[in-house]
Amino acid sequence: MEKYISSFQNPLVKEFSLLQSKSRERKKSGLFPIEGQREISLAIKGGCRIKTILFSSEIIAEEDLYVIKDLSNSETYFVEISTEIYDKLAYRNSTEGILAIAEAKEHRLENFDFQSKNPLILVAEATEKPGNIGALLRTADAANLDGVLIADMKTDLYNPNIIRSSVGCIFTNKIATGTTTEIIEFLKANAISIYCAALQTSQPYHTQDYTKASALVVGTEATGLSKEWLHASTQNIIIPMQGEIDSMNVSVAAGILIFEAKRQRLFK
Amino acid sequence: MEKYISSFQNPLVKEFSLLQSKSRERKKSGLFPIEGQREISLAIKGGCRIKTILFSSEIIAEEDLYVIKDLSNSETYFVEISTEIYDKLAYRNSTEGILAIAEAKEHRLENFDFQSKNPLILVAEATEKPGNIGALLRTADAANLDGVLIADMKTDLYNPNIIRSSVGCIFTNKIATGTTTEIIEFLKANAISIYCAALQTSQPYHTQDYTKASALVVGTEATGLSKEWLHASTQNIIIPMQGEIDSMNVSVAAGILIFEAKRQRLFK
Repeated sequence: MEKYISSFQNPLVKEFSLLQSKSRERKKSGLFPIEGQREISLAIKGGCRIKTILFSSEIIAEEDLYVIKDLSNSETYFVEISTEIYDKLAYRNSTEGILAIAEAKEHRLENFDFQSKNPLILVAEATEKPGNIGALLRTADAANLDGVLIADMKTDLYNPNIIRSSVGCIFTNKIATGTTTEIIEFLKANAISIYCAALQTSQPYHTQDYTKASALVVGTEATGLSKEWLHASTQNIIIPMQGEIDSMNVSVAAGILIFEAKRQRLFK
Repeated sequence: MEKYISSFQNPLVKEFSLLQSKSRERKKSGLFPIEGQREISLAIKGGCRIKTILFSSEIIAEEDLYVIKDLSNSETYFVEISTEIYDKLAYRNSTEGILAIAEAKEHRLENFDFQSKNPLILVAEATEKPGNIGALLRTADAANLDGVLIADMKTDLYNPNIIRSSVGCIFTNKIATGTTTEIIEFLKANAISIYCAALQTSQPYHTQDYTKASALVVGTEATGLSKEWLHASTQNIIIPMQGEIDSMNVSVAAGILIFEAKRQRLFK
């Protein structure tokens, strides 16, 4: 252990705090904050380099820091922090006692590949709430999708609310981001059928065949998908709504579409 | 208009505030608070008597109070409130300008009936987060389920967080509450098959037939269903999980199960 920090004025404490609150700071530095040992462990597994680990030995004993085993290199800097500092920096009220600063991975479309000949991909356009992106990533992980493409993102991928609501699934999914135009080009170039969840000229979702290479595309709850997606659509699909209220949570809707595709593929 | 209130000390303002914050107060009085014209309108449609409407004419003009048309009796008391009072009482940052105090309906199991010979019912046991109950109600409305049964509720049904997260679907669904024991008895008495979402001795959900009278039963994300449900189960069902993380949001899981049943029933 190299250091003990108990001052709120310490540059590392300030840096962590800025990385939590400022998207700009994350983009500029290429770094992002993680909270919780499970999340840190998943980030390592997902190929993120951990730059710094901050932990409070009053909350977590050194021998319980199992993430140390997961660290493949010895370049990670360990810093002990006081419980007061931990309480200030941690979002959750839990008593995990461990935080980290990690290097963001790039999520370029040109590096996005898939092993399956008939990939099943989720596309989310302009999702406004970080919690919704996190929920989508959780479902995408459960279904072991070939990837998630996020179009015209309103925030950066390493927004702490996304990491938290994804319960670490941001690290377990293959993710790329891009503009709607770029992602449509990518899907077409790879001969992946585009199924847009939309009200207009749509077929009931369960009447379509998703066993070939397919992308399921969802938009925002408020305004749906942009015209660009609807023009590029192979087929618009709709979940029949039979209630009083014409609205469904986007992560529930995506779950229904994804698992219908999985069912057709016999969960292989 | 009978009255104008601009004092935080006014008994009605205090009452509204207490009904928002205290479950005990709601239970004792049989009243609950509603926010927003759409929600109030759905509550009236769902058979709730509106005792008082509080509105700020600086935010909403009297001619825009379309809920007046929905009120079937003239016993509703209209009160104008200042914008300061409104801002203090309203949860949302929106500018709807209208609140109400309504009479809670009873949700007894003995009054729970259904028109279908083969009802499709959702049961939720001990759901801890009001937001999750709201999300379940939203999906139940979209699927036009025959009803939602809530077992061993941790809060009261008219918790403002439930009303809000249900986007008013608390008023559009047929809902009954009871203990797990009571609800199991009810289902058995009505020859409704019980499909428990559970890890133990379960079959993949999509291999089961839900076209007969069926109840889909979900528990908490943390601990799942109680033993009592698992003993009463006709068949435990599971959504195959193929990712790294063994967890799915309960409302997403319920959506997948409900819409598989709807698909089998051809959305009739």
